[in-house]
Order: sequence, then structure tokens, then C-alpha cells
Amino acid sequence: MPGRFVTFEGIDGAGKSTQLGHALDWARSNGVAHVATREPGGTPLGETLRRILLDPSVGMDPDTELLLMFASRSEHLARVIRPALANGHWVFCDRFTDATHAYQGGGRGVATERIAALEHWVQQGLQPDLTLLFDIDPATSRARRSERGEQPDRFESEAVAFHGRVREAYLQRAKQCAERVVVIDAGLSADVVRLRVSVALQALRLSGGSAARQSALPGAAPEAPPP
Amino acid sequence: MPGRFVTFEGIDGAGKSTQLGHALDWARSNGVAHVATREPGGTPLGETLRRILLDPSVGMDPDTELLLMFASRSEHLARVIRPALANGHWVFCDRFTDATHAYQGGGRGVATERIAALEHWVQQGLQPDLTLLFDIDPATSRARRSERGEQPDRFESEAVAFHGRVREAYLQRAKQCAERVVVIDAGLSADVVRLRVSVALQALRLSGGSAARQSALPGAAPEAPPP
Repeated sequence: MPGRFVTFEGIDGAGKSTQLGHALDWARSNGVAHVATREPGGTPLGETLRRILLDPSVGMDPDTELLLMFASRSEHLARVIRPALANGHWVFCDRFTDATHAYQGGGRGVATERIAALEHWVQQGLQPDLTLLFDIDPATSRARRSERGEQPDRFESEAVAFHGRVREAYLQRAKQCAERVVVIDAGLSADVVRLRVSVALQALRLSGGSAARQSALPGAAPEAPPP
Repeated sequence: MPGRFVTFEGIDGAGKSTQLGHALDWARSNGVAHVATREPGGTPLGETLRRILLDPSVGMDPDTELLLMFASRSEHLARVIRPALANGHWVFCDRFTDATHAYQGGGRGVATERIAALEHWVQQGLQPDLTLLFDIDPATSRARRSERGEQPDRFESEAVAFHGRVREAYLQRAKQCAERVVVIDAGLSADVVRLRVSVALQALRLSGGSAARQSALPGAAPEAPPP
């Protein structure tokens, strides 16, 4: 049985991490060998880059931010994601390239084609088999985050308008990649959201594999556009 | 009078840093406003990345190393090099993209076209006006470095064969970019090398500007290949 690559996306406060925890419960219950990881990060070097990227005291050019995100991703793919998938493990990843399109594209205004060029350079066709996008209004997410009383990181401390642009970019990306992205209304009750996550995972488990994955094999034809 | 971008290249132990010091003396003597900087590094974030890149205890994938080099370069261009040139300053830089072709291309074996794709993405046409390549036999450079008794960094600690490939890639790059790269035999006496550096700088100062620089202006035609 092949490994599958599942990513969890959404703005902070959407309940993404809670639902990733539920997905791990689902995997354990179903005897699915898996790895849980996150971006930026997931490797010792990636976690060092994460600290730099999230540090509110560090300023950087948007192009630099984008290159650091992809440097973390390159290391993560080489050392964690590709080896796990090759071993037949499922990879559950808290954020991946859709977040880059949302935050650096929608949020910072970096042109889509510049992000896509690095995406192609780093991933060489590899895409998630399933992406769960937890969609929530930025004002609601901000209220949730302030309830938690955490210090905001360099992205969380951006204005609500920034998070509004991030949300819109996420939704646009979901439309463009409808064959793999499932949008879940994160304003629903946690139990309902959890049920939707389980249904999506079960469907992926029962499916014969993913067109997206095939395109990542060396020499394979590029992924066909969704119908 | 426009700023000029001058880079100093070569394997460690070629005398590059000593000659960069002489170039700064030349600039002061000739009343040339200038900035001295280096790669990887040259900005607070870039220096953080430099420490990671040179740390012998840090392992990383060659693609990751390349992305980190270009992340440092992106920040350096945005915050130091482009503003200095726009202000009419000369920029004297210890290593730039030729080093990436030499170390990550020649040394690590990353394909030239993959390096060129990032070079284009980050620099968008900007190239040095003059590159001084200090060429030396790797065995001689190793002897010089061991005389200095310094702890080798992650690159210096590579085998002589690695530095041999780096040297060959530097020389190949010099041929491809003959319109801006001056190769100087670093095995000659320091005084002769210094004289050659001064002559090259004086020639650049008296020249009417650089074709390479023009190509970096937004909307300008791409740089013509050397005849």
C-alpha cells in the first residue's frame, strides 16, 4: 500500500493543529503507518529556519522570505517527506506550498508565477494527495488566538487585512487545485469538522492512489489539469 | 558617476581577502565612494545564514544549500548592493554568484541550469561589472590555509578533489563570462597581483559604464552574449 501525502492548511486559529491531532488518532485507529511533521520546519535545519522566519524582531525582503520557505521545504522533502512516502508511510504535514501561495503570494504580494517557479524547482512535480483547508473568518480566528493568550509570531502579528488576503489566496488556490483540496468550514462545531476530516481520509485510503503522486515519479507525464 | 559592482572570487587561500583590502586602499586613494561586503552574508540575516552554511556540524541537501545561498543573496541585493549602486557607490564584494556556480555546481554537482534558474529569479539580470578571479592550485591554497592555522569551515574541510572541481568550474565560468571576469594568477608575488588588481579597477573607472549593468535596468533588453 503506497504512502499518501496529506497537508493541513488555513490561517492561524482555524483549528488546523487540533484536526491534525484527530487525523493522527484516525491513523492509529486504522493501523496506518504515518509521520507527523510541519512547515516551515520538520528537520533540524528547517526548525532553525522556522525560528528565523517567525521571529517578529527579524525583518526581511519578501523574496528572501520566499527563498527561506523553499529552503526549509527542500530539506524537508529530501530528508523526511520523500523517504517516508517511499517507505509506504502516510505523511501528515501542518502547512505546505499552498501556505506559501497564501502568505507570501496573497499576504505579501509576491507574484504567483515567481512562487510557481520555485515550487517547480523544489518539488519537481510532487504535490499532496489530499489537502484539508480549514476556512475561517480572520476576525474569528484572531479572537480565538487572543483567547489562547499566545505571543503572536511574525505572521500572526500582521493586520487583519493581511489575514483576509491570505484567506482569499487560500480559497483561490483551492479552486485551482480542486482535485486535491477539500475546503472545510472551520466555523462549524469541532465534532462536525472532525467527522469531515475522517471522511476525507477514509476516502483517500480507499482510493486507488493519486494522480498527483504519479506525476512526481521521475520521467512521468505532468499532472493533467482537473476536468 | 555611476556605481560599479566588483566581485572577488577564488578558492580559499588564493589571497582574495588580502587583495580586496588593497582594492579598498585604491578606492580611498582615488576618492571612490564605496561599500565593502561579502557573501554569504552582508546583512544581519545574511550573516545568520552564513553561520549556518559554514558550520561543519550542519548537514544539508545540495538543493537546500543552494537555496540558502540565494536567500542570503536576495537580502544582500535588496538591502545593500542595489541601494549602494543606486547611490553611485562602488560595491566590492567578497564572492558572489560565480562562487555558487563553482562550489554548488562544480563542487557539489548541482546542474548548471538549476543554478542559472535561481540566478535569474534572484538577480533579474544584475551582474557584476568586473570580477577578479584569483586562480591558484588547490594544494598550494591548502598549504597556505594550514599555515594560518585556522579551523576549516564546512567548505574548507572538503577534500582537495572538491577544491579542484571548484577551481575548474571557476575557470569555465570565467571563459563563459569573459566580458567581465579577469583571471589573475594568484601564485605570482603579492605585489604583482596587487598591481594587476589596480590596473583592472582603473580600467573600469575610466570606462563608460558596463553592458552588464545596463541589462539590470527594468525593461532593458537582456545582456548580449560576448562576441
